[in-house]
Amino acid sequence: MTITVAVDAMGGDVGLKVTVPASLRFLEEHPEARLILVGDSQAIEAELSEQASAARDRLDIRHASQVVDMDEPPQLALKNKKDSSMRVAINLVKDGEAQAAVSAGNTGALMATARFVLKTIPGIDRPAIAKLLPTVEGRDTCMLDLGANVDCTPEQLLQFGIMGSELVSCIAGRENPRVGLLNIGSEDIKGNESVKRASVLLKESGLNFYGNVEGDDVYRGKVDVVVCDGFTGNVALKTSEGVAHMVVMFMRREFSRTWWTRLCALMAMSVLKRFRNSLDPRRYNGASFLGLKGTVVKSHGGTDALGFGFALHQAWEEARSNVIGHITDRVVLQMANLKSPVTEAN
Amino acid sequence: MTITVAVDAMGGDVGLKVTVPASLRFLEEHPEARLILVGDSQAIEAELSEQASAARDRLDIRHASQVVDMDEPPQLALKNKKDSSMRVAINLVKDGEAQAAVSAGNTGALMATARFVLKTIPGIDRPAIAKLLPTVEGRDTCMLDLGANVDCTPEQLLQFGIMGSELVSCIAGRENPRVGLLNIGSEDIKGNESVKRASVLLKESGLNFYGNVEGDDVYRGKVDVVVCDGFTGNVALKTSEGVAHMVVMFMRREFSRTWWTRLCALMAMSVLKRFRNSLDPRRYNGASFLGLKGTVVKSHGGTDALGFGFALHQAWEEARSNVIGHITDRVVLQMANLKSPVTEAN
Repeated sequence: MTITVAVDAMGGDVGLKVTVPASLRFLEEHPEARLILVGDSQAIEAELSEQASAARDRLDIRHASQVVDMDEPPQLALKNKKDSSMRVAINLVKDGEAQAAVSAGNTGALMATARFVLKTIPGIDRPAIAKLLPTVEGRDTCMLDLGANVDCTPEQLLQFGIMGSELVSCIAGRENPRVGLLNIGSEDIKGNESVKRASVLLKESGLNFYGNVEGDDVYRGKVDVVVCDGFTGNVALKTSEGVAHMVVMFMRREFSRTWWTRLCALMAMSVLKRFRNSLDPRRYNGASFLGLKGTVVKSHGGTDALGFGFALHQAWEEARSNVIGHITDRVVLQMANLKSPVTEAN
Repeated sequence: MTITVAVDAMGGDVGLKVTVPASLRFLEEHPEARLILVGDSQAIEAELSEQASAARDRLDIRHASQVVDMDEPPQLALKNKKDSSMRVAINLVKDGEAQAAVSAGNTGALMATARFVLKTIPGIDRPAIAKLLPTVEGRDTCMLDLGANVDCTPEQLLQFGIMGSELVSCIAGRENPRVGLLNIGSEDIKGNESVKRASVLLKESGLNFYGNVEGDDVYRGKVDVVVCDGFTGNVALKTSEGVAHMVVMFMRREFSRTWWTRLCALMAMSVLKRFRNSLDPRRYNGASFLGLKGTVVKSHGGTDALGFGFALHQAWEEARSNVIGHITDRVVLQMANLKSPVTEAN
């Protein structure tokens, strides 16, 4: 089946100058994919006319007269921007014209719109934001939630475990992924009440539950999925970005200190480039909104065409491997388990 | 006034082989300081006899017959280990024989013992764990709580702001330190209820409140103090350590790939060493237990003599600059403010 991805062409700090070249490049690299660029059709046409590409015939344009501002309150966007590029892109998923939507726009508005239009999968209380992160082991780890849900019930944390597990299983082809619960110690007695109860639910869930993991385990590759509430996850993710930024700054400072260190940098240029590439946040761009009845991927607002391309690939890959179908099936199974007499007796 | 620091000589993964050489070196570098090494006096004497040092005459030994195990439950340690090196060291602070205590032992047991023996400063609900962290700007940031309190009330978060502010002001000599509240967005509407209400309290507190900061701001040096609950703080700190570890591993991998990259590494050795030093966790070893009626500093359990020396210095510096006196005064002032009719009318 041909996968069509709807692209909010106007979203992000830059908009068309990023989304259009990224879209063409994505089509060139994915010969079976199709894209629908949503936004101001004249502006999109103008941008496309500047870029010659053989893949142009697999790209459609859908006009949308409005754009959601990056700092617009989600509820206002939902109420007043019914013809925004973001909303129309998500409508295309709902109507079956596209199998996934990607936007680099306002995260809160994108989540509110996606929830309103697509609804959540039965058995999932609220969607979560998930991201793949690099590890020392070389295998990516999926971490969720990264900011959609400030406070989480134990049941929601269990649902995150299920969704993350299915994502990793579909995208990375890992069977029975190990699920860890982010905590402040490996012992069961650690953490707040919600985390402690989630640990019990995860143990009984049939998932491959590893147990508690700590912050320094996230990048160790000990587990395939790291489950946490959105407050903790958001802080952990952004702190990681801050540390990585600081490290690169420190290294730049040391290598530009004297003529000798600059000469060293010149000699080691290829090594330093490979090193920087291994930490390049653009390669990990694309956060998945999991738990909805449609695939939605959020790109970082400030990314460039290379980064936006990774978000497009993430959305395409999720749709292609039917992550939503797998989550839906697993949740049904989980709910049946919960209703079984064995569990009720516990 | 001569500052005497009581050292739990038996604590940590290694014990005497780390604490004794670190203590002698500390005394050599701090000609006015005194130390009391607490633990198995025979073993301490034996270790000391292996190290010739002119500073030996400023070092006393206090015998303690027990040692708290690294994984011993805090309540059991409190009940059964009344003559532990940890407990005796803290007793010395209570009795005024020492002005600070340092231990690399079991964190939970150290906190429980310190609270039980020393008690909290009036107006402080619970002690917090604080640490200085490097920033891109070069000025350290104090972050707290890092794991002592899983759930925090808005009032506790305010108290953390006061304590962190006084610590930075005393140790780094920064007047009116900027205090930031860790959150998942800069807007006031973000975060859980406790954080939202803490933001209001901090605004009214008379502290130099900057507002919300996000995870990536911690290492930017935007603020001097980052306030958060112990769950979030612990995860953020350990995630940071994980990222730093991964980055160093990635760099090592790139520089050892071929004979050419190894040659580059050899040439750039001094640069790479300076770079590694700037990230060396030993230089930031020493977490302060703030809010107690005595100075207690926790060293990382796995550190070496260099790292333990930094923890000793941290404790000495806190005692010397009277951090506890400043916190006590500030809390009294704060409580008077809260009782004023103006605040009550709000």
